[in-house]
Amino acid sequence: MTMDDEFEKIDWLTKRLSRSRMDASSVDVRLGIGDDAAIIDFGERPAVVTVDTQVEGVHFRRSLLSDAALGTRALIAAASDVWAMGARPGAAVVAMTLPAGYEDSAFRDLIEGIDEGARELGVQVIGGNLSGGPTLSITTTVLGPSPDRVLTRAGAEVGNRIFVTGTLGAAALGLAVLERAATHENSAAFAKRWRRPPSHGTGLSALTAGATAAIDVSDGFMQDLAHVCTASGVGAEVHAPTLPVAEGYHATCKALGLDPTELALTGGEDYEILFTAPEASIPDGVATAVGHVTEPSGIHVLDADGSAITLSGGGYRHFS
Amino acid sequence: MTMDDEFEKIDWLTKRLSRSRMDASSVDVRLGIGDDAAIIDFGERPAVVTVDTQVEGVHFRRSLLSDAALGTRALIAAASDVWAMGARPGAAVVAMTLPAGYEDSAFRDLIEGIDEGARELGVQVIGGNLSGGPTLSITTTVLGPSPDRVLTRAGAEVGNRIFVTGTLGAAALGLAVLERAATHENSAAFAKRWRRPPSHGTGLSALTAGATAAIDVSDGFMQDLAHVCTASGVGAEVHAPTLPVAEGYHATCKALGLDPTELALTGGEDYEILFTAPEASIPDGVATAVGHVTEPSGIHVLDADGSAITLSGGGYRHFS
Repeated sequence: MTMDDEFEKIDWLTKRLSRSRMDASSVDVRLGIGDDAAIIDFGERPAVVTVDTQVEGVHFRRSLLSDAALGTRALIAAASDVWAMGARPGAAVVAMTLPAGYEDSAFRDLIEGIDEGARELGVQVIGGNLSGGPTLSITTTVLGPSPDRVLTRAGAEVGNRIFVTGTLGAAALGLAVLERAATHENSAAFAKRWRRPPSHGTGLSALTAGATAAIDVSDGFMQDLAHVCTASGVGAEVHAPTLPVAEGYHATCKALGLDPTELALTGGEDYEILFTAPEASIPDGVATAVGHVTEPSGIHVLDADGSAITLSGGGYRHFS
Repeated sequence: MTMDDEFEKIDWLTKRLSRSRMDASSVDVRLGIGDDAAIIDFGERPAVVTVDTQVEGVHFRRSLLSDAALGTRALIAAASDVWAMGARPGAAVVAMTLPAGYEDSAFRDLIEGIDEGARELGVQVIGGNLSGGPTLSITTTVLGPSPDRVLTRAGAEVGNRIFVTGTLGAAALGLAVLERAATHENSAAFAKRWRRPPSHGTGLSALTAGATAAIDVSDGFMQDLAHVCTASGVGAEVHAPTLPVAEGYHATCKALGLDPTELALTGGEDYEILFTAPEASIPDGVATAVGHVTEPSGIHVLDADGSAITLSGGGYRHFS
């Protein structure tokens, strides 16, 4: 067996480690490896737990992202998986690996950025770890009290509509802007959108109260929708013209020679929430309906005239 | 301000992030940054949370540690901070950064090693993250239900005895054995001791039931004792001849030209538990009394004849 990509490795380790579940553990694991976050219970109130790592040269470059912005971004990216469970982040533990030449001023900026993110999210940083190492890296564990009804990737039902918050493709477009040092109209707004993912406040839980499944859009809409379809045992039909995009998105894509539909479908790091729900349960305007859940037959993307769109690339890949 | 070492950085970020504690958070933080682990409460039962990172070239080298041993070691090293709170580890979240050339077989061995550690500790691996990156690195977050009485670094009282579990210096000696490819009698046992830290089972909580303060010995006995003294506002007197060492320790130190007392006091990664307690509360033989808590006047190490021992080096430093 070769495990060429992250998902094959995750599949393998999930199977491997699930075998070692113990009856006599001090913790009641309500949901283990395989979803956006795990759910554990030490007593009366379950907790949602998730972890995310940001590595220099893979998820960010210091030339494109200030240290303060990195701190905020690392926290929001990790919290994104908690929101995707229908939960609210409450506490974070931050492990940082700092290279020998990392300046004191950079370190202070990084912590200020984490603090800014913590305040915005209502999260308390309760612990962490500092280590030396050749590569700047931040691993953030976020915990939050579990909602009464947890949203997993499984649960999407045939006939449900597929919704997404905010806009798609803007973060990937912002990264393209930064990498090419583009200075078109709106380019600064897209760069900012890549640097600073959206934080989903208390409104999100009301929004997803009627949802059947959810995931955050970090690997790209198509790939994350595929995770939901696999976990739920369903297929999906997506209507490309309905994909929500930001103001100036098409013009900036054109200026950079990028296919706007493909970027919206596969561009990563949007950190929006993709969820499925019966249509009636979602009020207009708070999220965009982009398709519906079908019998299991893969994911089909249709253009305005009903013709199938074939994507040239795969999912989103980070820098390396 | 320059922050030359890890502890200065931790002091700074602790002060900085403590300012952002919020009243309206969803989580009740019983104990935040600054001890071995944090304590949070989402409901009826508080949880202990801690995180530790192992970075290739800093905490281990692949030439000295198999991938399976790395997996087990990373889990035990992280759990060590939970034991040091008087708690039992119950769940773990593991974030791995894998270089492009990391072999599938190595990855499988790593997971097998994590699984072995999880079984030994009674811990369930409930989630994680895989990321690419230039440097192999594992960040492990461990959670456990909080005991009724948590052991922090603060709480040591003048007149308490200072105890330590197991032996000191053996892990650092094992690393020296491995780095020099030494093949003296007992050298294999010390190498094994570095590779595989001790796991403290259910017996530890009984042992520390009467303790006033505790910490795990990861940075070296003297440095970790200093953390306890600082947090408790006390001093300490340590009796060098009473320091517990493993069989063959003196002979192997001699063969490698190492000072056995200095290595026992400053060698890192023992992952034993250092705790303070009224003498009467600890049964003979389960931990070794190595000194006592004094009025705040620093830490003094005395030889058999009562003369002060001065250490040539500082605390333990990892590879880089």
